Amino acid sequence: MEPGRRILIVGGGFAGLYAAKSLGSSGFDVTLVDRRNFHLFQPLLYQVATGGLSPGEIASPLRYVLNRFRNVRVLLGEVVDIDVNARRVLLAPDDLGAREIPYDVLIVAAGARHHYFGRPEWEPLAPGLKTIEDATEIRRRILLAFEAAERETDPEIRRAWLTFVVVGGGPTGVELAGALGEIANDTLRKDFRSINPAEANILLFEGGSRILNSFTEELSAAAERSLIRLGVRTRRGIVTGIDAEAVTVKVESGEIRIATRTVLWAAGVQASPLAQVLADRTGCALDPAGRVIVEPDLTIAGHPEIYVLGDMAHFAHQTGKPLPGVAPVAMQQGAYVARRLRGRTQTPFRYADKGNLATIGRAAAVAEVFGLRFSGLPAWLLWLFIHILYLIETDNRLLVLTQWVFNYFTRNRGARLITGEGAAGAAPRG
Amino acid sequence: MEPGRRILIVGGGFAGLYAAKSLGSSGFDVTLVDRRNFHLFQPLLYQVATGGLSPGEIASPLRYVLNRFRNVRVLLGEVVDIDVNARRVLLAPDDLGAREIPYDVLIVAAGARHHYFGRPEWEPLAPGLKTIEDATEIRRRILLAFEAAERETDPEIRRAWLTFVVVGGGPTGVELAGALGEIANDTLRKDFRSINPAEANILLFEGGSRILNSFTEELSAAAERSLIRLGVRTRRGIVTGIDAEAVTVKVESGEIRIATRTVLWAAGVQASPLAQVLADRTGCALDPAGRVIVEPDLTIAGHPEIYVLGDMAHFAHQTGKPLPGVAPVAMQQGAYVARRLRGRTQTPFRYADKGNLATIGRAAAVAEVFGLRFSGLPAWLLWLFIHILYLIETDNRLLVLTQWVFNYFTRNRGARLITGEGAAGAAPRG
Repeated sequence: MEPGRRILIVGGGFAGLYAAKSLGSSGFDVTLVDRRNFHLFQPLLYQVATGGLSPGEIASPLRYVLNRFRNVRVLLGEVVDIDVNARRVLLAPDDLGAREIPYDVLIVAAGARHHYFGRPEWEPLAPGLKTIEDATEIRRRILLAFEAAERETDPEIRRAWLTFVVVGGGPTGVELAGALGEIANDTLRKDFRSINPAEANILLFEGGSRILNSFTEELSAAAERSLIRLGVRTRRGIVTGIDAEAVTVKVESGEIRIATRTVLWAAGVQASPLAQVLADRTGCALDPAGRVIVEPDLTIAGHPEIYVLGDMAHFAHQTGKPLPGVAPVAMQQGAYVARRLRGRTQTPFRYADKGNLATIGRAAAVAEVFGLRFSGLPAWLLWLFIHILYLIETDNRLLVLTQWVFNYFTRNRGARLITGEGAAGAAPRG
Repeated sequence: MEPGRRILIVGGGFAGLYAAKSLGSSGFDVTLVDRRNFHLFQPLLYQVATGGLSPGEIASPLRYVLNRFRNVRVLLGEVVDIDVNARRVLLAPDDLGAREIPYDVLIVAAGARHHYFGRPEWEPLAPGLKTIEDATEIRRRILLAFEAAERETDPEIRRAWLTFVVVGGGPTGVELAGALGEIANDTLRKDFRSINPAEANILLFEGGSRILNSFTEELSAAAERSLIRLGVRTRRGIVTGIDAEAVTVKVESGEIRIATRTVLWAAGVQASPLAQVLADRTGCALDPAGRVIVEPDLTIAGHPEIYVLGDMAHFAHQTGKPLPGVAPVAMQQGAYVARRLRGRTQTPFRYADKGNLATIGRAAAVAEVFGLRFSGLPAWLLWLFIHILYLIETDNRLLVLTQWVFNYFTRNRGARLITGEGAAGAAPRG
């Protein structure tokens, strides 16, 4: 493509950011638009939700990450519509009025959000983990549950406050449940006088046959053993009801009701509503999770100027199954599109799978890397190394490492702040 | 006082926390109640408001700080009334219903909040800086102002977005204005394409004759010179009106109107409403700032079992003027009351003034310590040293130091996230 053409990237997640970086200093006129002013390192979001890290430690201002590329501009705004014929996107109206941005090439990488399988009323009862606000809300609920249990005198209600249910046994659910186990057994060990946090009841429900089903059976079993050591019980079951005081779960023996005040959702995601906008405007096909089914070169059928990447894209040309919604896929897709636009490749996209990692807690993880499978401390050290390596900003890297070294040796989680609405669990503050 | 007596501390700020720590392992039955679950290192709150530090880096969970003292219990709740005859406090009703806590000795240290001099309608237009939520709200407004200026095409409105007004020339106002100068001149230098952040117009209004009036005239002048180097203009004037698009200020030459979208309030504080509760219940006198006028031993007249400390207390027995609302006064008062209750002192409280420090920006500060007065880099290094020393938790100390060393050399502020409501400056997020 000739220099000077306008490339518009929607979304500053892994796919959009890596596309923008790879198009830096290219001669194209690149604009990245995002609703937020920062890139979020989502794989560590569960650490914020469990008080191990602060939001600022896993987020980097997009302007800062991209400011060395004079041909890349960052714009704060929310894309609500795309006029594919006139080649322009429409931003949500705000103080400055509605605005349009023209493009020659459009890269859509707006990600995914939670999916409650047709039960949107569960969302306030069982928050999911996709944004910084989600993470601080989950942190607030977890910490307030222990505070409420400390004050509660009715043993039955106290038990409900100390019961935590995580729905979904993928990496996010396993990481959340593992971190909850550490909080109960280590972090809060000496903090209360009326309750023993180690008596917390942490349940992880998985609808399929085993947790971490993208790993081998042996590694799933190793992860389950690590969770048991942290006091987490893994059960097979499908959630059929959630209210303010309990969840109902369909298990093999029938339906059971579990009294709990804290339910965390890690069960399903759905592509950004922009996928539906693309389908309406171009007639492109979506899969049941709302993802755009893309061509081998990540474009939309009939629109060689529109690319869809990351969690929004359903790419099944390599293995017959869609690629998983993980950061390495998104990064490689972002870099691929940039190479393609710069004329450096004509071949279809191929995901180079470097491996699969999930952490369960302090010094426990499972890994499948370069054909090797292992678990325990070596897997955890690898997890630590890779995550620090990938943290975008140099100062974040060192900060997170510092915090982790301390968390590891002190078993403390310094960022366990209850902030936001109802912070005191009491009347609004004066 | 005999062992086993119940000491109730209201507030986990510097005064309450130091009282609780000094009463640790004492044989008394100590309860600390606070609306928040963390102690906030308020002197660094302006760093969160300006993206230099994350909330978790200047806050420590109260339970963690106090967990080694088995005789100290922490309770989350908001005190709304005090029954001085029955010796019990009433907590705001919440999920667990209204509750009462009995005491033998009551230590009230609930701090202060902003004061708009009878113009409460200014609060949403000109936020003050007292809580973590205040700080993230100010951070949101500052960063969104630059984003809006980048997108704005009308030069007059763009100018208003790039105009920042700080009201009040005490240490908080000076620190905020100095940090704003650094953001505009250093941090965001390369981040925008349509605006030059260094063209921001930062104004600091002080009603009195000079900024930092608790320092000598020479140091006030040194601080003003440092501010000018950061592009901040200091003016004498009293704010008479604030609306969404401008502030009106009465200056010597008359009334001027300044078009601005960002006004920050650092002009006045007022004691917690609990001071009024104490006045109603005990008849104790309050000063015009709503502070309780305390006896030489920090008790309330006629109530030797009630102590009032920190920003809530008006203590004028030492110099004739009330002690300033700064952390060292609060800490020393907390430790004094503990010594007194343990029978280790009978003399009146005396504040040992170790000096006075204010920072203006990177490598600039003013100090009056041990009779010495100095400014510039030496004062700033002293400021840095003392603040790191006082950060309650060991891991915070190292984290903040790491972050600062990086901020210093990179001139970056990694925690400049726009979070919370209206984060994208656009329609609510889907």
